[in-house]
Parts: sequence; structure tokens; C-alpha cells
Amino acid sequence: MTATAEQIKKLRELTGAGVLDAKRTLEEHNGDFDKALAILKEKGLKVAATKSERVAKQGLIETYVHGGGKIGVMVEVNCETDFVAATKEFQTLAHDLALQIAASNPRYVSQADVPAEVVAEQKKIFADAAVAEGKPANIVEKIVQGKLDSFYKESCLLLQPFVRDDKTTVSDLIKGAIAKLNENIVVRRFTRFELGEG
Amino acid sequence: MTATAEQIKKLRELTGAGVLDAKRTLEEHNGDFDKALAILKEKGLKVAATKSERVAKQGLIETYVHGGGKIGVMVEVNCETDFVAATKEFQTLAHDLALQIAASNPRYVSQADVPAEVVAEQKKIFADAAVAEGKPANIVEKIVQGKLDSFYKESCLLLQPFVRDDKTTVSDLIKGAIAKLNENIVVRRFTRFELGEG
Repeated sequence: MTATAEQIKKLRELTGAGVLDAKRTLEEHNGDFDKALAILKEKGLKVAATKSERVAKQGLIETYVHGGGKIGVMVEVNCETDFVAATKEFQTLAHDLALQIAASNPRYVSQADVPAEVVAEQKKIFADAAVAEGKPANIVEKIVQGKLDSFYKESCLLLQPFVRDDKTTVSDLIKGAIAKLNENIVVRRFTRFELGEG
Repeated sequence: MTATAEQIKKLRELTGAGVLDAKRTLEEHNGDFDKALAILKEKGLKVAATKSERVAKQGLIETYVHGGGKIGVMVEVNCETDFVAATKEFQTLAHDLALQIAASNPRYVSQADVPAEVVAEQKKIFADAAVAEGKPANIVEKIVQGKLDSFYKESCLLLQPFVRDDKTTVSDLIKGAIAKLNENIVVRRFTRFELGEG
């Protein structure tokens, strides 16, 4: 069983793998596309992990305005070199991130950015609600943890499902780009304005 | 002496005055363009003052990216109605404000937004410098006030000279737009990112 050119092309698009790597992985698994995809993705994530400590100070500031000026987003996405910042892949990533922020309204970049007082406040709200609903004390904690996890997934950009493909998280989207572009990539900060809010 | 059509057109562009008002003011001052301009501007500023308490919650969020993604600005400019937000004049104002912020890097919208601790810190820096230069105590306070005024003019958007015409402040630019568009206009907030800063 040999790999078709189309399968190889698709695998490369999705994972950033090289031609030979994509071809070999497909052939080793009898042309099973999904299997090869999973293996190459996993490999990509390992590559991403090895980059995550590298200094990323180049990149792009990207903006996106929605609804004729009703919602605006500005995001800074960093990579390691000007060269990567100028690639279409990186620009597409920055644009997708701006769209994501416009559509899904995250409040923080990552879970680590949620202030301790916000976590404490959310926990109290969830616990009070569970107690008010008459839940026994021994499961209140579990309920609180579950709701807190949902809160993180809603409010942290990196944990959100990607708006263009909800089987992927934003974090995985970025890891895919790291594997393809072979540089550390970091969302440094973002701001989102909604007309007349607050 | 009668007013020429060209003079009237120019006056209207610069002040937002009506045709008859521009014509009469010119004729009353023997066609002295600069005099008529000053009078109509003054009138416009009075109109602006009467609008300044009106609620402005419509408007535009405008973005501007400079240097291929090296500097980004997002600004929210409010007016009273959707209708005015859709005018070319208002859009031009929002765009000019975004350019201003990109070029002149203000830290605050207005003097009132400078935190008290920043003012105190600046005062201390200016006073220490004056004392170190051996200035007598009785003039240190004047020096500090002068330097503080310069600090406000540099760091507050509304007090900055307008980058396209440094004879005008940003505040006057906005007042001119209020007089032309006949609605209150307010810069609500802005953010400016510089790649890799901080």
C-alpha cells in the first residue's frame, strides 16, 4: 500500500510534517490516514514542547473589527524571528486568533492569568449555588471543580474550542503552528472593545 | 466687500458653519478670512460646550496597524447616534485619532485620567532634579508646575498637538467635529501595543 500524493499533501497541511515523514508514516500504517494524522500531530506537539522555553519577541500585532465598528480586537502574537512573522501561516494564525477573540470573548490568555481573587470569587459563587440547591457537602467540592473547569474553558483564550473547528482548542492550534513553523509562538496579550460597554 | 464662494467653502470645511453664517461673518468683517475663521471657531467651541453633557454611547471602534504589525492601536470614539457614527467626518475623526495615538504614544485620554500617584511621582522627580541643579526653593515649585504641564501635554491624548496640524490640539480637533456634527463626541478609551515591549 502506497501513500497517494493527495494524502501526503493533506497530512503536511494539517501537521506541518515533511514530505518524507508524511509518506513514511502513512506507509507504515497501510495508508490509514487518521492513524498517520494522529501520530504526526503527536510528534508535532512534542516539537512544540521543546520550543516552549525559547524567547519569542518578534511577531505581529493584528487587529480585527467586527460589525462595522461595534467590536474591535487587538492581539499581539510573538514568534522568534521576523522571517516567521512574515510567513502566510503565521499571519493566518494571528488573524484566526483575532477572530477567535472577537467571537468568543475570552477574558484572559491562559489559566495562569486568571487572578487568584477571581478564582476565589467564582468558587464562592459556585459553592453557594450548589449549597442553595441542597447538594450534600461531600459533592459540593466536586461540583465547584467542574464548574471552575468550565469557567476556565470559557474565559481563557488558550483553553477555548477554536471557532473554526471546535474539535481543536486554541492551544492545539498554536502548537500546530509551532510544529509547522519550527519556532516558539506565544500569545502575549490581547484587548477587546465592545461599543459602549462597561 | 462680498464673500467669495471659495472663502465660504473653506470656512465651512474648517468650522462646520452653515453657508449663511459663514457668508455673513465674512461680510461683517470685510472679507477678513482669518478674523471670520476665529469667530466661527469660537462659536463652534461654544456649541461643543453645550453638547458635552449629552450621553454618547454610539460610535466606532477603530484600529490602525503601523509598520507591518509592529505597532497597533485600538480606540473607541463615541457619539450620540448611529447616524453620525456612519458619516465620513466621524470616521475620519476616528481614523485621525488612531493615527495620533500610534504616532504620539499618549498614556491617558485626558488629564483627569492620570492617576494621583503618577502625578505625585512626577512631581517628586521634577522637584528633586530642580533641587539637585541648585535652584532656589522659591522657584522650585514653579519649575515643577511647568514640567508637570509639559508632562500632561505629552502623555494625555486630548492635550497633545494634533500630528496632522500642530497648531491644533486633539481636544480642539474633537470640538470642531462636535460643532460640525452637532453631537457630543467622546474618546472613551484606547490601547496601543508595541511589538515586544514591556
